[in-house]
Amino acid sequence: MRLTQFSEYALRLLIFAAAHPDRLVTVEEAAVSYGISRTHLMKVANLLVRQDFLKGVRGRSGGLTLAQRPEEISLGALIRATEPAFSLVECFGEAEGGSLLSLDRWRGILSDAMEAFLAELDRYSLRDLAADPQRFGIGAPAA
Amino acid sequence: MRLTQFSEYALRLLIFAAAHPDRLVTVEEAAVSYGISRTHLMKVANLLVRQDFLKGVRGRSGGLTLAQRPEEISLGALIRATEPAFSLVECFGEAEGGSLLSLDRWRGILSDAMEAFLAELDRYSLRDLAADPQRFGIGAPAA
Repeated sequence: MRLTQFSEYALRLLIFAAAHPDRLVTVEEAAVSYGISRTHLMKVANLLVRQDFLKGVRGRSGGLTLAQRPEEISLGALIRATEPAFSLVECFGEAEGGSLLSLDRWRGILSDAMEAFLAELDRYSLRDLAADPQRFGIGAPAA
Repeated sequence: MRLTQFSEYALRLLIFAAAHPDRLVTVEEAAVSYGISRTHLMKVANLLVRQDFLKGVRGRSGGLTLAQRPEEISLGALIRATEPAFSLVECFGEAEGGSLLSLDRWRGILSDAMEAFLAELDRYSLRDLAADPQRFGIGAPAA
């Protein structure tokens, strides 16, 4: 059982932004800090901006910042946004053996199980993952 | 989100055995029927025998048969036996950025979510996946 690298990078980038609440961060510095691909992280950043997890500020001194407070970013919502649908069932082809299995039934069961997985993640926010919540600026007064 | 090919093959092999309740099946014929690797399917068969999902009969006319009735084979138990532990967290290394995240907390949350996923699968058995339950020999008198 495995989440995609895309989801992992998304989590990393959000954590990085959360850890620097007082300024904009860049994909470059996050990529260097984690030692991961800048190109891949850029794709992740684009999706996170489109899905309103990150806010992008353009320009020479631009960068990224969380679009919501860490305690408002649900881990379930994040994984829903970054994970493709369950793909096991697509592997079952048209072969003779494939017809032994009710694909519709299997898809339905996996979909329900996935919902249970995500419902559990819904109980937690980005803030819950902070090694040091102080650094997330949680102490700052609410807007 | 993805189950491993190993789990997919395990499900296929059990379905194949379930669809031929009146005789032993072989890894060879299942591999040919599905058009998949005999070598990989053999590894899967070995684990399924060790974990008591399949019973192996040795000898020239030997083969495999379900070790339990299809309705007794829990999909949750099967996936627990075939899936490695959740591996996302292992990707987070010792890099500076890694220390922003509480790995223990993330592991715990993923573990709980995985349990919720499996608990949902526990509600179903191999029989629930049969395209044609008649072929599973369910009509036969219980032993």
